[in-house]
Amino acid sequence: MSVARTTEITATSPKGFEDASRKGIERATRTLRNVRSAWIKEQEVVLEGDAVDHYKVTMKVTFILDD
Amino acid sequence: MSVARTTEITATSPKGFEDASRKGIERATRTLRNVRSAWIKEQEVVLEGDAVDHYKVTMKVTFILDD
Amino acid sequence: MSVARTTEITATSPKGFEDASRKGIERATRTLRNVRSAWIKEQEVVLEGDAVDHYKVTMKVTFILDD
Amino acid sequence: MSVARTTEITATSPKGFEDASRKGIERATRTLRNVRSAWIKEQEVVLEGDAVDHYKVTMKVTFILDD
Amino acid sequence: MSVARTTEITATSPKGFEDASRKGIERATRTLRNVRSAWIKEQEVVLEGDAVDHYKVTMKVTFILDD
Amino acid sequence: MSVARTTEITATSPKGFEDASRKGIERATRTLRNVRSAWIKEQEVVLEGDAVDHYKVTMKVTFILDD
Amino acid sequence: MSVARTTEITATSPKGFEDASRKGIERATRTLRNVRSAWIKEQEVVLEGDAVDHYKVTMKVTFILDD
Amino acid sequence: MSVARTTEITATSPKGFEDASRKGIERATRTLRNVRSAWIKEQEVVLEGDAVDHYKVTMKVTFILDD
Amino acid sequence: MSVARTTEITATSPKGFEDASRKGIERATRTLRNVRSAWIKEQEVVLEGDAVDHYKVTMKVTFILDD
Amino acid sequence: MSVARTTEITATSPKGFEDASRKGIERATRTLRNVRSAWIKEQEVVLEGDAVDHYKVTMKVTFILDD
Amino acid sequence: MSVARTTEITATSPKGFEDASRKGIERATRTLRNVRSAWIKEQEVVLEGDAVDHYKVTMKVTFILDD
Amino acid sequence: MSVARTTEITATSPKGFEDASRKGIERATRTLRNVRSAWIKEQEVVLEGDAVDHYKVTMKVTFILDD
Repeated sequence: MSVARTTEITATSPKGFEDASRKGIERATRTLRNVRSAWIKEQEVVLEGDAVDHYKVTMKVTFILDD
Repeated sequence: MSVARTTEITATSPKGFEDASRKGIERATRTLRNVRSAWIKEQEVVLEGDAVDHYKVTMKVTFILDD
Repeated sequence: MSVARTTEITATSPKGFEDASRKGIERATRTLRNVRSAWIKEQEVVLEGDAVDHYKVTMKVTFILDD
Repeated sequence: MSVARTTEITATSPKGFEDASRKGIERATRTLRNVRSAWIKEQEVVLEGDAVDHYKVTMKVTFILDD
Repeated sequence: MSVARTTEITATSPKGFEDASRKGIERATRTLRNVRSAWIKEQEVVLEGDAVDHYKVTMKVTFILDD
Repeated sequence: MSVARTTEITATSPKGFEDASRKGIERATRTLRNVRSAWIKEQEVVLEGDAVDHYKVTMKVTFILDD
Repeated sequence: MSVARTTEITATSPKGFEDASRKGIERATRTLRNVRSAWIKEQEVVLEGDAVDHYKVTMKVTFILDD
Repeated sequence: MSVARTTEITATSPKGFEDASRKGIERATRTLRNVRSAWIKEQEVVLEGDAVDHYKVTMKVTFILDD
Repeated sequence: MSVARTTEITATSPKGFEDASRKGIERATRTLRNVRSAWIKEQEVVLEGDAVDHYKVTMKVTFILDD
Repeated sequence: MSVARTTEITATSPKGFEDASRKGIERATRTLRNVRSAWIKEQEVVLEGDAVDHYKVTMKVTFILDD
Repeated sequence: MSVARTTEITATSPKGFEDASRKGIERATRTLRNVRSAWIKEQEVVLEGDAVDHYKVTMKVTFILDD
Repeated sequence: MSVARTTEITATSPKGFEDASRKGIERATRTLRNVRSAWIKEQEVVLEGDAVDHYKVTMKVTFILDD
């Protein structure tokens, strides 16, 4: 029976929310092993001078701790 | 004046959240008549090995009850 | 040190949630200056006869007030 | 020791919220046995032209399951 | 500058939610002085057999403490 | 595809919650066009010397923006 | 890619919360196939004349729909 | 039609959450008459030097007021 | 193993939120023994004719019950 | 019986949260008449380099509408 | 005056929720010093075939940071 | 496009909430680089024998991850 940990990260992308979530997961899996899921907590569009600059996603990433 | 019912379903897709929501709606409309809307309650990315395996969406589906 | 205001808008699109959010932002920037962000509050798929008719997004749009 | 189930329904009435809740309960008791309670989750007034068209109540109806 | 206290009470009535809230307030003002307000926290319809038996309201009653 | 806005208003009435909501909607439709709904956010009974003085309702009023 | 449904049930036991949750799951698996999980939403101790009468658990039970 | 009051108490036990809830109910029934239920609001394990010291439960206890 | 109770009070001060919280605690400790903490639930600034009149704090005060 | 409106603003100050709330209220009363209260919704400290740059407060400001 | 940190972990056990919480705490105290408490955030029963496979607890574990 | 992480810390001060938040931020910036903000989650006054002992603030601190 393993123990998992959850950490909260925020990632951005100029393309869209799904791309931002992939970016965040990609960054998380570089440092963490056994990443199982990323629950979407917040989604925000950020503007620069009246135009969409990027999409920002806050996620709770869960990964299994080594024993 | 009709009465509507709401039920909670969870659907998945390897492509993205919107595709997962369409899958869930498609499945719901096979069994339920007069489906009016699907309110997005939760969105989660599920991984396998260090890569995205599928997108999971939990929705509250509302449909009109026959009189 | 500026003061910002937040207003709640709902926009729709037949294509998807992100397109709906862009539509809402586009409409907001026509009337409001210095729009900084749009926080996604709700997402709902609306059906017509058993098929998806449009995607509905409720957003909290924040803009900087002139001094 | 019995087991109960809860289902979410939405009912409307041109008269008021309490009448809408009675309508919803009346419809529920036509299909469900042993209905015990209806917890009021949401209340909304819906307009047509600039006048009140109907009152909409979302309720969580609890009923005892047969053994 | 006075200090106020808030206490939570639940009252019922066979007539409706507003009558139940008046009953609760009437009972509270018998024991408490300087009652200022009753914020409606929950509303539930309770059934007996398949008919409405009574309306139940949970309220947070605020009253000013004597100095 | 129209865009809607939501604003929060509070109205009162000595008679009851539904009358207070009608008062608020009546006031809103004097200044706003295309009002579609009023979602009930809060309900509070306000007292004056141990007796009910008025019923206070906070609502989120949604109206369609002109294009 | 399967679709799952979630339903809300309430079960009781004179022994404790875990026993009540097992009772609820046991009842659910009698009527539903492919039950995957039961998320604990509420826990309440109910008394009868100053003594604990039973433990009440409200759970959201998720099960996989047949295709 | 009686009126009930709800008060919030916190109790602890070295054995477990259910024992802590019984301790709290036992203490409440010593001072309050007609205690009907204890809804579990919070559960926390408290440690002392890397070992479990006690289980802490916060409950909302409801009791019927004398007329 | 002691049992604690939590009660909700609201205090005000013309100086600021922290002063209001001290006022509330000072008033609570006059009537209650063994007050352990005051958790800040709400903070509101109240105006009188376009100027700040006072700061209002709602707190949940926890105190240990005598055995 | 008047009708009030609530709008959400965010203000900042290098000094502290209370100063930020006063700044926001001062800005609001320049444009709005009959401002009654400002309910504190969010408080955030924003850094620059490793030092506090400013305090950010989000408030819901309520003002009475002219009849 | 020390500073504490809170991290979110999920642990499981075939026996029950309390055993799962002890497992999680045991694992946490292997890596973290000065663990003070574990606040229970979520409880879920996970099934395999139609039988309970394990109990899953999500906890927020708080520990004091070394100075 | 960078990725940020959020961690939850609790700090205390005998002086006040703002001082406690500065203490927490000061401690965080000793171990973490690129700290951007501290969102105030909870505020609690802790007493010792009927007098205020210290102010406790729980914050969610966000910092940018190195690439």
